[in-house]
Amino acid sequence: MLSNIRIVLVQTYHPGNIGASARAMKTMGLDDLVLVNPRQFPDPEATRLAAGAEDLVENARVVGSLGEALSDCMQVVGASARLRSLPLPHFDEPDAMARELVEHAATDPVALVFGRERSGLTNDEIRLCSHQVSIPANPEYGILNLSQAVQVLAYEVFKAWRQRPESGYRPQRPEEERAPSRDQLGHFHDHLSRVMRESGFLTQPHARTEAQLQALFARAQPSRKELSLLRGLLASLEVHLPEEGK
Amino acid sequence: MLSNIRIVLVQTYHPGNIGASARAMKTMGLDDLVLVNPRQFPDPEATRLAAGAEDLVENARVVGSLGEALSDCMQVVGASARLRSLPLPHFDEPDAMARELVEHAATDPVALVFGRERSGLTNDEIRLCSHQVSIPANPEYGILNLSQAVQVLAYEVFKAWRQRPESGYRPQRPEEERAPSRDQLGHFHDHLSRVMRESGFLTQPHARTEAQLQALFARAQPSRKELSLLRGLLASLEVHLPEEGK
Repeated sequence: MLSNIRIVLVQTYHPGNIGASARAMKTMGLDDLVLVNPRQFPDPEATRLAAGAEDLVENARVVGSLGEALSDCMQVVGASARLRSLPLPHFDEPDAMARELVEHAATDPVALVFGRERSGLTNDEIRLCSHQVSIPANPEYGILNLSQAVQVLAYEVFKAWRQRPESGYRPQRPEEERAPSRDQLGHFHDHLSRVMRESGFLTQPHARTEAQLQALFARAQPSRKELSLLRGLLASLEVHLPEEGK
Repeated sequence: MLSNIRIVLVQTYHPGNIGASARAMKTMGLDDLVLVNPRQFPDPEATRLAAGAEDLVENARVVGSLGEALSDCMQVVGASARLRSLPLPHFDEPDAMARELVEHAATDPVALVFGRERSGLTNDEIRLCSHQVSIPANPEYGILNLSQAVQVLAYEVFKAWRQRPESGYRPQRPEEERAPSRDQLGHFHDHLSRVMRESGFLTQPHARTEAQLQALFARAQPSRKELSLLRGLLASLEVHLPEEGK
């Protein structure tokens, strides 16, 4: 699915932007890069800024026209910072664009086209697109660097893909501590209440105070390990407290 | 609200990343940049890559420790590519993080902290954070360039802010053409049906075929201008067709 999504850069001026775009692509699972008439390519700057995405730069297809880059694509979205009143369907939000693009990419090649750093895409190039998308930005300064625009749209594409059940993507979570069982929580509550009584904080069982403190700890969602820690602390405190009833 | 959101870069190695991060911030409405012990700053590379965001670079506060950068913040989110099993609440998704951060920024300063290019944040620095966030990425190559990470999280923050009614953000749309009235659509349908009959395509009124073609045009959501165009085309065609009934 993601391999069906082509990133096309038209007449990129700075080779560094090609490398940084390749890196942005790779971090988001994309690998089909096509360059239309890049000003200066290959170039050491492209390789340098690609960091670990050199393979995308090396395998990038270089063509002479946008048409060649897109011939087999069933949907072509032109990324345009400068909105024009061209009658092309326009996505207000990159996430809506990404969901549709990924949907189509399930069965066909599709493309996301980026223009020149200074002037974007020409009207003729936009006519080769089926849709436009722009990245909502600060009205006073809204032009993202080319490779940053690639990163943002690639990020939304990857997110749209991740959110599809068939993608099989598993988030990498920090080692999650197991939640305690109801029994373990019950023992902790009993222990806490006992310490509250033994310390003289409560002279008799006081359901409301006990419930409030239990709720506070519950909000912290302690793991088993943390509950253990707390019980260890309570036990150390108890050593110094008179036993109940004495 | 957005001015309450501070971006903190810790011990950035490449001054170019500082500049590119400043640009990323400004495109997304952020302007509070703090640098903790940058390796090389000020630097022409920072200014060059800032493009139109030079003011953010010039006004950036430089401090000696992360604590100094954060003293007044009520929420601090550490951006970490490398997930650790530290018991810090963790946002799986940048958009969830952004909504919460923007919510808090309505009333208090908050911060988003980014670490070193190679090694991220130290455990001590993470302890100064109230939350962690990571950007879901390609499991095989998931480390975004520092300024790209700033761009993506700033983009989510700006999106969260835009989506709040009180932000007053108005999307910049292409000049929207007015939709036609029901009457105008009716006239178009009549004209189209007449041309279908006059051309011999329909030998008699055929409700289903007419309805199908009307539905197709309806899906295109023609503007008044476009409807005019179509009617002009139909009129030109009619010149060459025998009048109905003759």
